[in-house]
Amino acid sequence: MAWGRVQTADGRILSGLVTETTVQPMADFAGSTPAGPAESLTGTRLLPPCQPGKFIGLWNNYRAAAEKNGHAIPAAPLWFLKPDSSVVGHGATVTLPPHAGRVIYEGELGVVIGTPYRNATLAEAEAAIFGYTCINDLTSLNILNADPSFPQWNRSKGLDGFGVIGPTIATGLDWRDLTIRTLVNGRERQSYPAADMIFSPAEIVHHLSQDMTLMPCDVIAVGTSLGARPVKAGDVVAVFIDGIGSVEVTLA
Amino acid sequence: MAWGRVQTADGRILSGLVTETTVQPMADFAGSTPAGPAESLTGTRLLPPCQPGKFIGLWNNYRAAAEKNGHAIPAAPLWFLKPDSSVVGHGATVTLPPHAGRVIYEGELGVVIGTPYRNATLAEAEAAIFGYTCINDLTSLNILNADPSFPQWNRSKGLDGFGVIGPTIATGLDWRDLTIRTLVNGRERQSYPAADMIFSPAEIVHHLSQDMTLMPCDVIAVGTSLGARPVKAGDVVAVFIDGIGSVEVTLA
Repeated sequence: MAWGRVQTADGRILSGLVTETTVQPMADFAGSTPAGPAESLTGTRLLPPCQPGKFIGLWNNYRAAAEKNGHAIPAAPLWFLKPDSSVVGHGATVTLPPHAGRVIYEGELGVVIGTPYRNATLAEAEAAIFGYTCINDLTSLNILNADPSFPQWNRSKGLDGFGVIGPTIATGLDWRDLTIRTLVNGRERQSYPAADMIFSPAEIVHHLSQDMTLMPCDVIAVGTSLGARPVKAGDVVAVFIDGIGSVEVTLA
Repeated sequence: MAWGRVQTADGRILSGLVTETTVQPMADFAGSTPAGPAESLTGTRLLPPCQPGKFIGLWNNYRAAAEKNGHAIPAAPLWFLKPDSSVVGHGATVTLPPHAGRVIYEGELGVVIGTPYRNATLAEAEAAIFGYTCINDLTSLNILNADPSFPQWNRSKGLDGFGVIGPTIATGLDWRDLTIRTLVNGRERQSYPAADMIFSPAEIVHHLSQDMTLMPCDVIAVGTSLGARPVKAGDVVAVFIDGIGSVEVTLA
């Protein structure tokens, strides 16, 4: 099953279950009450599948990358926030301002929360996960390291368009089976198994919920592995996960 | 003029212009179209004056603190994000989980955006500011410094209740005249002039808008100065700014 959000030719926004040809609008995010008749996708434009209140990204959550980069295995998930204004969906054009300098893609698996939770047990955390999506966590290395006294995680990952989410949210998947692939201009640049992650989706939700109330539509990008490389204006970058789909943006 | 948000005894949320005794609900945040008759504040509960999409906090933005702590004057505002779930208003009880360890208050001036802006000039930035509020940017020092490889700004400042905003938003003030005072159990612990800040509110909005679209109700805590100290369960912490008011929380 896939959950998505589209804008119709006459400007209405529909959120609900999507097939290849239709969308069935639903009354609530992740809910099951129809909010009107199914409509054709013809002439609609795909939006980010939800607008997260919290858009969380993990750092250092893959064993292969930790080993290559000499990072210790963390005792708890290490994370940063991406601002609401960074969110775009499939098909967007992302403008790289000159001061962003070297910008890298980071193809990632995204976990989408379906149920409000605080202090979730591991079992509750597992149940709080609505589904999975593809993320491109674009990052400006120039901004990240511009000030030696303060690494600018939020700013470097927070430019308009730097939080790519989509194309839809897939439910009923086992994340252990997934492979995350990033293609730049059609050429594969990242391909790594989700099973190599250090903290599993349920472990991440469990940990985060000890500090914060997680809400439906919150999105957690679980970190990237090897192969994140610089991109430039004109490049087309797609993050592809079998069973979810491909989220593609054009850099400008 | 003051803008606030209250919950009525029967559970309705009213957002608009508040006096000492009434609230005039408005149709849009920072707007001027009434959304119904004025109501008495009797029996209502004050909420955070808005729910920001982006809650931004500055680090190292006061000259006195930079000098004392040996920090260089930054070339651009250095900032972090606080999650939506951290937001509470006047009168809240904030629970300190055991793993938060040493928690400090940080009394701050808050800037509230009224107009959407991207790439704002200084004059546009000035005009984009709707008003000012009081902030207590609670911070867990144990979490901030728990992992030597990754300072955890978002997590240490992101626990439920760690983003205190209120009591209301005051408009028509000159920030240069303001003094930020923090009182713990009635005893003054911080008192510093806003005029000592490194980047002014308009300069901050100008800089931030080069990266991100700022939206109405986004809140920017412009940083704290000297005197931020640890607090513990049972303490009552108030941040007071003349012309705005006092936002007080009880720690538990």
